[in-house]
Amino acid sequence: MRSGKLVIAEGGGPTAVINQSLVGAIIEARCFPQIERIYGARYGVRGVVDEDFVDLSMESRANLEAIAVTPSSALGSTRDKPDLAYCRDIFASLKAHGAAWFLYIGGNDTAETMRIVSEEADKEHYDLRCLHVPKTIDNDLMQNDHAPGFPSAARFVVEAFMGVDLDDRALRGVYLAVVMGRESGFLTGSSAAARTIDGDGPHLIYLPERVFDEDRFLSEVKTVHDKLGRCVIAVSEGVRDAHGAPLSVRIGKTSETDPHGNIQLSSAGALADLLCAEIKSKLGIKRARGDAFGYLERSFAGCASDVDQREAREVGEFAVKQAIWGRGDGSVAIRRIGDYAVEYGLVKLAEVAGKTRVMDDAFIASSGSDVTPAYLNYLRPLLGGDLPRPARLRGGAVAKMLKR
Amino acid sequence: MRSGKLVIAEGGGPTAVINQSLVGAIIEARCFPQIERIYGARYGVRGVVDEDFVDLSMESRANLEAIAVTPSSALGSTRDKPDLAYCRDIFASLKAHGAAWFLYIGGNDTAETMRIVSEEADKEHYDLRCLHVPKTIDNDLMQNDHAPGFPSAARFVVEAFMGVDLDDRALRGVYLAVVMGRESGFLTGSSAAARTIDGDGPHLIYLPERVFDEDRFLSEVKTVHDKLGRCVIAVSEGVRDAHGAPLSVRIGKTSETDPHGNIQLSSAGALADLLCAEIKSKLGIKRARGDAFGYLERSFAGCASDVDQREAREVGEFAVKQAIWGRGDGSVAIRRIGDYAVEYGLVKLAEVAGKTRVMDDAFIASSGSDVTPAYLNYLRPLLGGDLPRPARLRGGAVAKMLKR
Repeated sequence: MRSGKLVIAEGGGPTAVINQSLVGAIIEARCFPQIERIYGARYGVRGVVDEDFVDLSMESRANLEAIAVTPSSALGSTRDKPDLAYCRDIFASLKAHGAAWFLYIGGNDTAETMRIVSEEADKEHYDLRCLHVPKTIDNDLMQNDHAPGFPSAARFVVEAFMGVDLDDRALRGVYLAVVMGRESGFLTGSSAAARTIDGDGPHLIYLPERVFDEDRFLSEVKTVHDKLGRCVIAVSEGVRDAHGAPLSVRIGKTSETDPHGNIQLSSAGALADLLCAEIKSKLGIKRARGDAFGYLERSFAGCASDVDQREAREVGEFAVKQAIWGRGDGSVAIRRIGDYAVEYGLVKLAEVAGKTRVMDDAFIASSGSDVTPAYLNYLRPLLGGDLPRPARLRGGAVAKMLKR
Repeated sequence: MRSGKLVIAEGGGPTAVINQSLVGAIIEARCFPQIERIYGARYGVRGVVDEDFVDLSMESRANLEAIAVTPSSALGSTRDKPDLAYCRDIFASLKAHGAAWFLYIGGNDTAETMRIVSEEADKEHYDLRCLHVPKTIDNDLMQNDHAPGFPSAARFVVEAFMGVDLDDRALRGVYLAVVMGRESGFLTGSSAAARTIDGDGPHLIYLPERVFDEDRFLSEVKTVHDKLGRCVIAVSEGVRDAHGAPLSVRIGKTSETDPHGNIQLSSAGALADLLCAEIKSKLGIKRARGDAFGYLERSFAGCASDVDQREAREVGEFAVKQAIWGRGDGSVAIRRIGDYAVEYGLVKLAEVAGKTRVMDDAFIASSGSDVTPAYLNYLRPLLGGDLPRPARLRGGAVAKMLKR
């Protein structure tokens, strides 16, 4: 029987529920006597190389449950992408500490890291069981119905748009928010679930899966504003022009890339400002306000989906069961069965690693600036219970007395 | 006995609890038979002039309770500042509709509008009872311990900073958020309540009550970053340099003013970008991310303080009692008694109108870049129950095996 230590780490951008997966794995791992100790690597694979481990075996259940509902990665994270030399340092450290299992919670970049680690371990004849546990607010993982972390981020976006739409109803004009998601429009598209009745915003939704044409954008904003006296807009940080260039790069604010080659798009505030300036100057609309939801989307304390929390817990637990009883390395995947339930499976690391899932055509309205009912049907069960429900005054208009 | 219609309106920037005051007033007003009808003016005084009234008398209690927990101004709002001609249009409309009471929920600009309306009504011998009901996320109202709307916005800021601080713990580097509040630092200062243990952010807090010196700012960021390997910063949108010029004006993005002369500071994203660029270029820190919380601060659906909700309800109810039984026009004010309870009073409109309260010196740390325990003591009871409590792993470090 394989025995030794289990090392667990968290990679990539944090989410509101990534610690659920961590805690699910830790609690499950304690059930197996062949797992001698559970080590957490601080700051992802960087912590493995640096031997920056904490012993998680003594954590109280009460503290683990409190950590499970704490947003962001409790162990710390990294965006390092290991090359062969880096991998050899990882093995040296894991071997020195007697690790037999390595679990890494993260997105497609983390899966790619895991794929490299797994392959290099084979080449070096190091018997290490590697399990990738899915996580990303972008929802861009292949082989998964959805990724843990996305539902809670979507819930934040929905609650945010409910609020800013009500705000815009009160003071009118144009409001525009830039939403995260890189090349995938799932998170931006989730803003559509903020609508309750006709006239609710967002009225226009711009996704990275469709070319962003500025003239068309301005014309669509004008049409909505002419009709309603206001317009609420969701724009993905990753929208691109006809040449495939991200708008946020074109405005010259974001030339940074991370080690995985992802363009750093966080100066989304500049994109919001640019589009608002265009609306003011070219459409002559006086009041146009823009925000970027920024880091609040992935780490706001107190806005997680209960469905997401449960599933994130389960993928962590499932990864440990696979580590013990499964036949090899792989990535845990969520499959939807019925409407709504899920089951978990294990897929090859290469099926998830470094690949990007984007929205199906069936999820994008033919106008190109909205999502379809099919997308809302896909999204709604993920958002969890007790969403706020905005209400409206119903009182009828009073007849005018003055004839002005 | 005075009898007639009661007209109610909402002015200025929306809050998460302004509809509590609206609903408190409507429900209370229904108890008095001399109030023939309750009219809501849509879009503040603009709706009065335009005779854009809705009859609130038929609203169901269930719908009113649902509206009370819906953020933003259900009647719509305005930033119009009436002059004499505008006031005469207001009276013409109110007279034509037989209004005997006028309640206006808003901040110091709304109180100023109310003061002008009240004075002009006297001059014109129009017997109108004018009551101002306090509201503002900026907490800048004189004569009030705090203003309804501020506690819920502060709660949002606290939950947001809890999240972004945990996010910054995971990926390190500098994170900076620009917070609303115009010339008053209460909302920015509330970020301090996000801290639980030593090392928690925000580590630096920049308030508009103190001169913002860029060299000193950079030096303070460097000190924190050198010590912790990271730094989380809260910056008020209203920070000013030694010449009194708002930074967000200096960067040339915000020349707009509203009719009350308030500078439009909403391009706070540009301020965040500017300061992050300075941190990167002058301190050589690679990872520096900035957000502006923007409109989420005042309208996020699902993050109200229960204390704020109750008090906002009570000021609306109290205004109607004063309208019926009181001796004259005025502004409802909240006084703190003990630790913690409140009582309500009525002060002269001129004591609140157009004046701006800023943070007491006792609330600002001598460093100028933090708040004091006295401020936290003032703030904490306002935030309401069930705040998230971030938890941390306690596991001890594992001894290194390799001697690298």
